[in-house]
Amino acid sequence: MKKNVIIGQSGGPTAVINASLYGVAYEALNHEDSFGSVYGMINGVEGFLSDQYIDLKPFELSGELELIKTTPGSYLGSCRYKLPEDLTDGVYPVLFEKLNALNIGYFFYIGGNDSMDTVSKLSRYAEIINSDIRVIGVPKTIDNDLVETDHTPGFGSAAKYIASTVREISVDASVYDNKKSVTIVEIMGRHAGWLTGASALARKFKGDNPVLIYLPETNFDQDAFIEKVRTSLETTSNLVVCISEGIHDKNGTFICELASDVGVDAFGHKMLTGSGKYLENLVKERLGVKVRSIELNVCQRCSSSMLSKTDHKEAIASGAFAVKAALEGSTGKMISLKRQEGSAYLIDYVTSDVNVICNQEKPVPLEWINEEGTDVTDAFISYAKPLIQGEVTIPMEDGVPKFAYRK
Amino acid sequence: MKKNVIIGQSGGPTAVINASLYGVAYEALNHEDSFGSVYGMINGVEGFLSDQYIDLKPFELSGELELIKTTPGSYLGSCRYKLPEDLTDGVYPVLFEKLNALNIGYFFYIGGNDSMDTVSKLSRYAEIINSDIRVIGVPKTIDNDLVETDHTPGFGSAAKYIASTVREISVDASVYDNKKSVTIVEIMGRHAGWLTGASALARKFKGDNPVLIYLPETNFDQDAFIEKVRTSLETTSNLVVCISEGIHDKNGTFICELASDVGVDAFGHKMLTGSGKYLENLVKERLGVKVRSIELNVCQRCSSSMLSKTDHKEAIASGAFAVKAALEGSTGKMISLKRQEGSAYLIDYVTSDVNVICNQEKPVPLEWINEEGTDVTDAFISYAKPLIQGEVTIPMEDGVPKFAYRK
Repeated sequence: MKKNVIIGQSGGPTAVINASLYGVAYEALNHEDSFGSVYGMINGVEGFLSDQYIDLKPFELSGELELIKTTPGSYLGSCRYKLPEDLTDGVYPVLFEKLNALNIGYFFYIGGNDSMDTVSKLSRYAEIINSDIRVIGVPKTIDNDLVETDHTPGFGSAAKYIASTVREISVDASVYDNKKSVTIVEIMGRHAGWLTGASALARKFKGDNPVLIYLPETNFDQDAFIEKVRTSLETTSNLVVCISEGIHDKNGTFICELASDVGVDAFGHKMLTGSGKYLENLVKERLGVKVRSIELNVCQRCSSSMLSKTDHKEAIASGAFAVKAALEGSTGKMISLKRQEGSAYLIDYVTSDVNVICNQEKPVPLEWINEEGTDVTDAFISYAKPLIQGEVTIPMEDGVPKFAYRK
Repeated sequence: MKKNVIIGQSGGPTAVINASLYGVAYEALNHEDSFGSVYGMINGVEGFLSDQYIDLKPFELSGELELIKTTPGSYLGSCRYKLPEDLTDGVYPVLFEKLNALNIGYFFYIGGNDSMDTVSKLSRYAEIINSDIRVIGVPKTIDNDLVETDHTPGFGSAAKYIASTVREISVDASVYDNKKSVTIVEIMGRHAGWLTGASALARKFKGDNPVLIYLPETNFDQDAFIEKVRTSLETTSNLVVCISEGIHDKNGTFICELASDVGVDAFGHKMLTGSGKYLENLVKERLGVKVRSIELNVCQRCSSSMLSKTDHKEAIASGAFAVKAALEGSTGKMISLKRQEGSAYLIDYVTSDVNVICNQEKPVPLEWINEEGTDVTDAFISYAKPLIQGEVTIPMEDGVPKFAYRK
């Protein structure tokens, strides 16, 4: 009897996590000789534990799967559910009983760090109980902070959105170019500066905006920052500065926490202001120049308007490769993207031990940040540029993007 | 001797103000029998007063003009310069001396309310001094608040960006659809709710997000709002609420001002928090539910990723029509868009008296807002939907949009 397949999505959404879902589902549905049914868990492991899942075959037949391919967010729903460290916990037998009842032989989980932790635990538990269920992780995170892979699907599209948007913000900021101004753009990435660094791709020429870029990999010094802004304004009238939400001082205190220390809202609660807002006030106070801050917010992870074709293609391919790897016997692995040596951008798909990936973070290498901590180097740009290449056309209806959604 | 043409841009930028610049410039450059040189003022009237202008002919020859057509922001630079009410002020003879020295016969000014005030004053002054310079306004504003025109170029693209982005935010908000949450999206429009109303175009079906929409045309009541959010959460787990930045209570106090009353930053300054942030805290306090707020910020006026083809086409056509109107002797006019009666969406270009347009604001009609003040009606949707139709392909380079810029 052929074994069935189940797929889950977990953690924060990206613009291409559904492209990976498409990759796994399409590949599995088209190996009818190897697989039985193909199921999707609703809200990941958490939903599956309360028997929430759907059969994906009808979605292929109705054409919905095609639409899922270009829909941002997690079509199956997501969760932030951490399995217990103790593999003797009662949740494991419950989970495997449910998997066995559905005759599952292949378990695919699309996600980032925490999701790979789930893959690690389930594959280790399967080994302990001699289950033949193969558990495979498919990487996904805009943060690009997974180790053992050149980059992660989701990063390229977010980076392309950020580079494009910062270029547009720079245009907007320069319309009153006879007056000086500072625009601070706050970009996601609490511990890793990959996305903030990608704002460098917005530049049209050397010295173009964003002139200053601050990553969380280095310590942020307020006085040095103000001095740098002051001197930069001498050559760039309308200065654009990109900062990571996670910038922090040398004691490890987040800059946004400095703001929260003082503001209290109408209810007596500490005001949770972003780092950008804090620096906006700082620049206004110290330099008396026109300044505004912009938080790119969730749009950087959910916008479908700037999908990178490279990223989209790789997200699908990672999902499809996961199915092939599982068929060949892999378990306890994550699909990794390996960049070939040489000047051309070429990617090989390989499997990596998920146990060395989960609960680790990959920061931007310090040698890819300039000495002052105010910019990324050419090596960073060479690394990131291929990842944002190419566009994906999104189906439209009535003037807005057409997305798949569960009815 | 043929008279020369000068074009200026003024006020806040939009995604298609350069399309209007293209429309005027292209039309004028291709009437060599009627016009001499075609100039662009740098930073509007303010820059022109310090002799800042360029000849646009070389831009047509180099292909730059084609690129300007799809570049957001004000290519020529903008200004917020208000001419004196007193037409006997010394600035007027200075300005006209400069115009005469350049042998200007046609003056085109692309902008919103304040810019039409400039057109009004210059045309009235020209009449007083018997100058034959013809002064014509080309409408531009994302706010859609100009009277005497069905809508304004710039609104359609901003509306399309907002509708698309709110749809994406709704997808993002729903990934943990087994948990309740509220997402508040703050949209531009201090006094007119056209842009906020356009968020209704994000809905895929009746009752879809954004479930609640608050415009500045009605008074905002905090208690009624909280009650509405509470009951809406009973049917929509992940509620998206769109609010205008200009919502205010029945005394006319902006909701964002309520927040500023209490928060004080590290420098002892009042914290300038948006209405969205204030309501985020209010919902958290009163309902204890997961909540976040998102400010769409300048992206709604400068994004090139969601240009409406209808809007783009009309922006170009308004500029081109302005040239024809001036040739036929018009002055002291603004180009207006007149929607034809009937079910098909068809636009006629006409001229309107600029003196009745400037310094007026057109709010959303109250009959297009539901009785509770929590949504727009079908009439609003029928009005707005045609304006966001069609897409424009932006030239790309190295993975990001390619824009024109002054070197």
